Amino acid sequence: MSILAVGSVAFDTIATPAGHVQNVLGGSATHFSLAASYFTDVRVVAVVGEDFTAEHEDVLKKRGIDTRGIEHATGKTFRWGGKYLENLNEAKTDFTELNVFESFKPRIPAEYKDSEFLFLGNIHPALQAAVRSELPHPKLSGGDTMNFWIQGTRKELVHTLKLINVLLINDGEAKMLAGDNSLPRAARKVLAMGPQALVIKHGEYGATIFFRDGTFGIGTHPFRAPALPIEEVVDPTGAGDSFAGGFMGYIASQKELNREVLKRALFYGGVMGSFAVERFGTERMQSLTRDEIDARFRVFRELSHLE
Amino acid sequence: MSILAVGSVAFDTIATPAGHVQNVLGGSATHFSLAASYFTDVRVVAVVGEDFTAEHEDVLKKRGIDTRGIEHATGKTFRWGGKYLENLNEAKTDFTELNVFESFKPRIPAEYKDSEFLFLGNIHPALQAAVRSELPHPKLSGGDTMNFWIQGTRKELVHTLKLINVLLINDGEAKMLAGDNSLPRAARKVLAMGPQALVIKHGEYGATIFFRDGTFGIGTHPFRAPALPIEEVVDPTGAGDSFAGGFMGYIASQKELNREVLKRALFYGGVMGSFAVERFGTERMQSLTRDEIDARFRVFRELSHLE
Repeated sequence: MSILAVGSVAFDTIATPAGHVQNVLGGSATHFSLAASYFTDVRVVAVVGEDFTAEHEDVLKKRGIDTRGIEHATGKTFRWGGKYLENLNEAKTDFTELNVFESFKPRIPAEYKDSEFLFLGNIHPALQAAVRSELPHPKLSGGDTMNFWIQGTRKELVHTLKLINVLLINDGEAKMLAGDNSLPRAARKVLAMGPQALVIKHGEYGATIFFRDGTFGIGTHPFRAPALPIEEVVDPTGAGDSFAGGFMGYIASQKELNREVLKRALFYGGVMGSFAVERFGTERMQSLTRDEIDARFRVFRELSHLE
Repeated sequence: MSILAVGSVAFDTIATPAGHVQNVLGGSATHFSLAASYFTDVRVVAVVGEDFTAEHEDVLKKRGIDTRGIEHATGKTFRWGGKYLENLNEAKTDFTELNVFESFKPRIPAEYKDSEFLFLGNIHPALQAAVRSELPHPKLSGGDTMNFWIQGTRKELVHTLKLINVLLINDGEAKMLAGDNSLPRAARKVLAMGPQALVIKHGEYGATIFFRDGTFGIGTHPFRAPALPIEEVVDPTGAGDSFAGGFMGYIASQKELNREVLKRALFYGGVMGSFAVERFGTERMQSLTRDEIDARFRVFRELSHLE
């Protein structure tokens, strides 16, 4: 089944302890789509500028991603620059040039309207809500957000949270959104705001999915997928979007939506996030095979599996 | 089989967001012994002052712990005071009064010499080495340490690391000891210093055990036990020692020492750590039942278990 992904396409300039790159293809829609493309059909809605060439678009097309929803606007593509110091979990932003992204109004092509799954990448929550309203009956909708929106556009975000099934955020974002420093309490408060399930990403410690009472009829016990300890993290940029792509992509590839599928999806999210950080930008996400993905899934499974 | 535990006995004054207590029984040997006592016979070596009453000793005796190795010295028992602010993973020390602990020279009673397992709690590494030399052939020896010894007595600590089979420390201690900010790289460096296995405790994210090549003949893949997300952490003091008590206690209760036993031990460590934080001081560790422990073990097992 197909996923419609909306988000940013960007050119990133990144420095990490492992090196640095300039103007490499990035953005939430890019990372998400590439990761999800290993599991299911992906359609992307985003905006790019005149500096986005056919060669850039080919990175997505080669993975079979439908790029008809990418709007080509006059001006430059969104650019972001940042560095990761010793703590690879946190980026220090050097510059943000919104460019064509500043006036982005997502337009959903008619051919995309039959998408069964929807992922609202990290963009203004009012835009997320607008996209959601154009695809009124997805089998499952997921969304991401960040500190910037939690602090700056809380009212719009609270509205959007009522429109999505699964929110995927990290520890710091969950605590900030709930105003609570206890992760399980924060989870409960976020679930009370709307989504039926909440995925909290813990970086190298994996991720936990929390369920609202009675959701999907699959019980309320949380589930945690561990992550592989990675020796050489080259570039954490896009790890969260790649996680979301693996998570949503795996769900969309399954006939049923039940607790076991969501558990496996959480593992596949961790798998795709762990691959993403092995190279700069989208490099690793362009060259994977399904065999490599499933081999790492088995390693992750063994990592915490008792006989 | 029996474990000999050496460490501190203390009176702790603790403030957390959940409340505060004064001069409650604590210390590494106390927390460790109580946790391990649910699995196996425990013998404790420590020093206390005149303020340590028969009532205090009964807390240990009621759990069947052999207290003949507790030396009663003239003066006051070790006292520690600290508070936990919003970040419950880190204590801010208000005061440390070493008292009788300052001149502690562990003496191993003759009746303890046949102990099959040894745990060297968080004391001066030179004292750990001295105890280890008095029990030359344990089936397994475990040890703990902390930032204070890593920075202040590195030479002695490096010597002690060659004498123990399993080191149990937390993320920050592992990174500091190895001088490396990548956890798996830090693990490899610490293992090169001596121990055959390294348990790194991640607080609410669980713990990972790393193995040196060929150790125990059980492969080198790390194993990770997740932890239960706890809503109300009342008091984190002693969680690490309770983890170690569950880990070592479970191992000592098993006939064989293989990878599966170590994996289960890691889960039992997490179980005991998670109980420890539910009440102030040793309160929760005094009143558990093996049924409660095994029920939580099953919850932890389900937490990350794929069919």
